[in-house]
Amino acid sequence: MSQYIKDFPILDQQVNGNPLIYLDSGATSQKPFKVIEAVETYYKTMNSNVHRGVHTLGSRATDAYEGAREKVRRFINAGSTQEIIFNRGTTTGLNLVASSYARENLKEGDEILISPSEHHSNLIPWQQVAKVTGATLKYFELEPDGTLDLNKAKAAITDRTKLVAIAQVSNVLGTVFPVKELAGWVHAKGGVIVIDAAQSVPHMKVDVQDLDCDFLAFSGHKMVGPTGIGVLYGKEALLNAMEPIEFGGEMISTVGLYDSDWKELPWKFEGGTPIIAGAVGLGAAVDYLESIGMDTIDAHDRHLVAYAMERMGELEGVSMYGPRKDRTGMVTFNLDTVHPHDLATVLDAEGIAIRAGHHCCQPLMRWLEVTATARASFYLYNNESDIDRLVAGLKKAKEYFGNVFR
Amino acid sequence: MSQYIKDFPILDQQVNGNPLIYLDSGATSQKPFKVIEAVETYYKTMNSNVHRGVHTLGSRATDAYEGAREKVRRFINAGSTQEIIFNRGTTTGLNLVASSYARENLKEGDEILISPSEHHSNLIPWQQVAKVTGATLKYFELEPDGTLDLNKAKAAITDRTKLVAIAQVSNVLGTVFPVKELAGWVHAKGGVIVIDAAQSVPHMKVDVQDLDCDFLAFSGHKMVGPTGIGVLYGKEALLNAMEPIEFGGEMISTVGLYDSDWKELPWKFEGGTPIIAGAVGLGAAVDYLESIGMDTIDAHDRHLVAYAMERMGELEGVSMYGPRKDRTGMVTFNLDTVHPHDLATVLDAEGIAIRAGHHCCQPLMRWLEVTATARASFYLYNNESDIDRLVAGLKKAKEYFGNVFR
Repeated sequence: MSQYIKDFPILDQQVNGNPLIYLDSGATSQKPFKVIEAVETYYKTMNSNVHRGVHTLGSRATDAYEGAREKVRRFINAGSTQEIIFNRGTTTGLNLVASSYARENLKEGDEILISPSEHHSNLIPWQQVAKVTGATLKYFELEPDGTLDLNKAKAAITDRTKLVAIAQVSNVLGTVFPVKELAGWVHAKGGVIVIDAAQSVPHMKVDVQDLDCDFLAFSGHKMVGPTGIGVLYGKEALLNAMEPIEFGGEMISTVGLYDSDWKELPWKFEGGTPIIAGAVGLGAAVDYLESIGMDTIDAHDRHLVAYAMERMGELEGVSMYGPRKDRTGMVTFNLDTVHPHDLATVLDAEGIAIRAGHHCCQPLMRWLEVTATARASFYLYNNESDIDRLVAGLKKAKEYFGNVFR
Repeated sequence: MSQYIKDFPILDQQVNGNPLIYLDSGATSQKPFKVIEAVETYYKTMNSNVHRGVHTLGSRATDAYEGAREKVRRFINAGSTQEIIFNRGTTTGLNLVASSYARENLKEGDEILISPSEHHSNLIPWQQVAKVTGATLKYFELEPDGTLDLNKAKAAITDRTKLVAIAQVSNVLGTVFPVKELAGWVHAKGGVIVIDAAQSVPHMKVDVQDLDCDFLAFSGHKMVGPTGIGVLYGKEALLNAMEPIEFGGEMISTVGLYDSDWKELPWKFEGGTPIIAGAVGLGAAVDYLESIGMDTIDAHDRHLVAYAMERMGELEGVSMYGPRKDRTGMVTFNLDTVHPHDLATVLDAEGIAIRAGHHCCQPLMRWLEVTATARASFYLYNNESDIDRLVAGLKKAKEYFGNVFR
């Protein structure tokens, strides 16, 4: 995949005197020329507010914005563009489901079931729903390697389970969770499933009809798209029955002095001037990823994880978290007793960007019995030599901290 | 101000065989090279997630993001960056105040006071608050010219008035409302004022400390900034006492399995990956506007409105809405009995972009006793010759429709 590196202008630079090795795509991905240029072209040739304009720029902008929606629909194989809600990102999408669907449909005695590995954005909204509705928040049991045991998971889903919320790929463990199976089981009990796809949509083909999920949220910025744009997919019947939580222009049908009613999907959930350039950039990101092929990207990213775990496993003192297989996107680890922030700082001096901290997963950190970890995350512009550089950096760090703490 | 036209690449084009005259900045403004380039430079040199990174790109991105916040703080003269919340736009800001502050603080017997000229985004959220809390939604009385009588307005604010919400500049009438006086009167009664500044911040110097407003919301895209970024200003004590309504990463302090607590301001209200490139672009927009000077822009925009009203007033059959003075940004009108959509279509053929419709102000349309209007709105890149072109276009339209409907 080295042929794609040249598509990403930011990667062609030195950091602290060394060629930049960007291993933090789990936090946000870099952007290819085509995405940057799509945003630029939008502003330079067609910028206008959408839907409301009867002038030429307004039509161009509306076509570009709604065209991006169709690209996203096709990309995740939704049945209709009415099921594609543009918003600020995964967090906003999950919060909409929690604040609208869940608060209206859950009550005391009902159960919400999530994993202890969830990102805060797929955890705190459900804590809030539980508090407001009286429903009970429950957790799947994670196996020691950070996976779900299928039998136990199936048994955990009961008649009381009204909602399962889970990441398709954990942003710490890299685990690919069996969301299709979970969807089948929760549907059999009459509940719904909400998928946090922030770490899966960038890395693999996601087909919402095949998964049969009820809601699925992801972010543009993690899939080579702009910051500040995301998508909530929801089944049309569910979205139709839901109330909007943000009120303003473009989401209404008629407005009286004391009462109003709403437009049809998807605009009901897109009050105010939309994130037009962001959507256009996301459309370009979809085009870019499809030009490579999601299966190709999937194989590449899984290979890099396997290669990294193999190479890093050769180093004494490296603890890696999560399963050995069925994982993608990242390797999360610690090195001896070095604090991951210190490790990241030393690697940064070598031009290698990794992340360190709790990764917005404080409950998972406690489950792992650590306060923080380091995380190297990969994407289509990374290759084996980046991992070799990381391993060399870790060796250097080991030496450095070995001397310091000797 | 003609020297600034060349800063806006989109304006250098033909539409339908004529040079583009963009008179729709009230819907969204065009973007200068410096803003487009700031976004591009961000993606090409420093893109990274913010706050969480201990690597070089992460520091650069965080500095750029928080640097933009400081620029915005200075631009509106807020006392602290803690009072500057980045969000998706004006609609999101007003909804946050309604969904958090107002729902927590208002109750039956309390009154919310707004103007019949409000944009839907500063109207429907208060309808919802009234429904949920039992508070009563009341309306100021507008004078026939679309202004407030100061004595009547003062008298309308009573001990029951817990919240006044009003646009500083009406997006239809162009009226500059006396928000500083209203703030004083509502404070004397123990209430708060929420200002929709979407149409004022782009056109005049807005000083939140001088206005002594409690909350003020505006959008980047109407002030030569990117789409999808906005600002909510709130007084620190009020924001501190408010609960967030969106939950996720970056807005938390500690997260347990069943309970969590929040970070300090402003991050408490910025859950999830922020709109980083959007904020950076907004910072560049502030720099650009300040390089010209808000007083210069204010005088220019008011002059264009006065000039347009004078020139358009010479045409028979033109009805203009709103006051004759103390207005800025736009002229809203109808021509004979021509439907404004038809008028906009004919003008578009001449390369002139105006808006037609209810402008997200259905109650105001009923108050004006029209179903829709045309609106020509102006900004720093417009000049008198654009208005001359508009007037020539209107003459042509008059002739065309005169023949058609004769």
